Amino acid sequence: MSQPRTIALDAMGGDHGPSVVVPGAALSLERSPALSFIFYGDEQAIRAELERLPALAARSRVVHTDRVIGMSEKPSQALRRGKGSSLWMTIDAVRNGEADVAVSAGNTGAFMAMSKLILRPIKGIERPALAAIWPTVKAECIVLDVGANIGASSRELCHLAMMGAAMARALFHIERPTVGLLNVGVEEVKGVDEVREAHSILKSTAELPLDYRGFIEGDQIGQGSVDVVVVEGFAGNIALKTAEGTAKQIAEYLRAAMRRTWLSKLGAVLASGGFRVLKEKMDPRRVNGGTFLGLNGIAVKSHGGTDALGFASAVDLAYEMAQSHLIPRLTADLTAFHDKLEATTDTTAG
Amino acid sequence: MSQPRTIALDAMGGDHGPSVVVPGAALSLERSPALSFIFYGDEQAIRAELERLPALAARSRVVHTDRVIGMSEKPSQALRRGKGSSLWMTIDAVRNGEADVAVSAGNTGAFMAMSKLILRPIKGIERPALAAIWPTVKAECIVLDVGANIGASSRELCHLAMMGAAMARALFHIERPTVGLLNVGVEEVKGVDEVREAHSILKSTAELPLDYRGFIEGDQIGQGSVDVVVVEGFAGNIALKTAEGTAKQIAEYLRAAMRRTWLSKLGAVLASGGFRVLKEKMDPRRVNGGTFLGLNGIAVKSHGGTDALGFASAVDLAYEMAQSHLIPRLTADLTAFHDKLEATTDTTAG
Repeated sequence: MSQPRTIALDAMGGDHGPSVVVPGAALSLERSPALSFIFYGDEQAIRAELERLPALAARSRVVHTDRVIGMSEKPSQALRRGKGSSLWMTIDAVRNGEADVAVSAGNTGAFMAMSKLILRPIKGIERPALAAIWPTVKAECIVLDVGANIGASSRELCHLAMMGAAMARALFHIERPTVGLLNVGVEEVKGVDEVREAHSILKSTAELPLDYRGFIEGDQIGQGSVDVVVVEGFAGNIALKTAEGTAKQIAEYLRAAMRRTWLSKLGAVLASGGFRVLKEKMDPRRVNGGTFLGLNGIAVKSHGGTDALGFASAVDLAYEMAQSHLIPRLTADLTAFHDKLEATTDTTAG
Repeated sequence: MSQPRTIALDAMGGDHGPSVVVPGAALSLERSPALSFIFYGDEQAIRAELERLPALAARSRVVHTDRVIGMSEKPSQALRRGKGSSLWMTIDAVRNGEADVAVSAGNTGAFMAMSKLILRPIKGIERPALAAIWPTVKAECIVLDVGANIGASSRELCHLAMMGAAMARALFHIERPTVGLLNVGVEEVKGVDEVREAHSILKSTAELPLDYRGFIEGDQIGQGSVDVVVVEGFAGNIALKTAEGTAKQIAEYLRAAMRRTWLSKLGAVLASGGFRVLKEKMDPRRVNGGTFLGLNGIAVKSHGGTDALGFASAVDLAYEMAQSHLIPRLTADLTAFHDKLEATTDTTAG
């Protein structure tokens, strides 16, 4: 399944720029030797990093640009003065076909706004989404939207279901991924109008390219009850951040508990292999990378403060996404879905 | 600070009824000998439990009723046929002054709807809230609303801030608790209109009985950044359930990691004291009890599936709430707040 793919990288994005982006790409190349890269940014700084990584240098092209979008610039400002910046050129490489996916650890709002402007939403989608990969006790699931937009109509929630299913198909190689709608209760009477309406559309529409499982609650996400969890971006972002915070909090409890007595300290030393496995499981760098879905091109956002290992996870994810035929399939699925919805509406009207 | 207080208990609420409620009350009485109880429900079943607990029996009164609200009844149905049920009478004991607080492990929706009908919202509040106590790495914080209502206007978010502050004052004995508004980002430009507007009201209103700290994100809840976290009920419920799910998930990871090798198993045995401390820290029974705020009386909801230990936590919480003068103080605070808001509006209009 190792097809040659080109990944466009914003070398200036994130808190550390080329010193993380370039070694991160090198780690990913070790795992996927068919990859090649285009780096956008300060050529001198990029070349300095590439010099130490000849294998990566052999599969990389560098495109110089002086302009960089700051981490705290507002999206509107970034759009106005962003043309020619490393972030802009990274995304534009996907639009003009030079690259298959764009990856940046830069300013999320600016990345999202520019991706929407440059790549344009696919037919039938008004608002693209940000999807996160969420570790579960079984494997992983996809949660979206985790913050691209606030609020969602019932139609938009259905679009999120289709986009999430397309991503799950690409990453987990399941033809009909299971999908749940995040709600405050499992009874049909509960929740907001949009969520209830989306529920009834997803339940009643025949032959969807997904296996709709109904409402789920927040505690079921980590249990891996479904492959795709659909929620509007405000609650989705809060859920994601709360889960991250809880994981961090428990890690602190655990550290404190193991330092309590000499016996627990000794036990912790003996069990260090187990703790290492736990630490790896809980390492946020393992699943680094939010994906913008619903555009004519794939863009992956790495966490801004991550290191080379974390950035490599985002590149790995980009590569997996690039190997799938996500966009044409999703476009076809959405068209079929809208046709069905309109047919239903027509029947009802008649 | 041990003042005599009477607690009304719905003996029939929850998955286990009197077999959990009565022993739970006994545990709480050991910690707070000034408590007395009124049990509502099947007299025979309650007496059977009380027989084994003479100390509790000496401080308890039993009021028989045949009617019980089922765990899956809809709130509207429960309201129609609920009069005279154990849940109804438990709440009514607070209204007529026989008890200081009502505690039930029964049907949440019915409990909420009946409490609102019987106790009535305090002046200035349209929609009561459900507040949760959330463990943090520092101590505990209060998060509200965790599901009483979906959506909240800016004014309602301010009310949540005042209610949460009143509860924090009662439980943590802090005169001006710190309050944060849960949002998807810390920049002022982000978030929904209602949240932004509530932010500007809380920031600009002078002499509030709380210390407003601005926006916080989901990962800061568990860090104990503020005493009170304000969020509308849909996102709040999802955050709470997601945190519970994440804690459970990590506990499963930890168990699996400690079973990996004989060395890690041995280490886990030696460190069992530390693990016990961790388990206690993460025990959901320790902080069992959601509080309905904004009514002319306090009602505490215990988790339906909990055991005597968990139910005792809900009773402990009820007792602490009963010892404070929460309602007259909150009523006064809300009146002052509305006067200030109107004064501001008048000035703006002039």
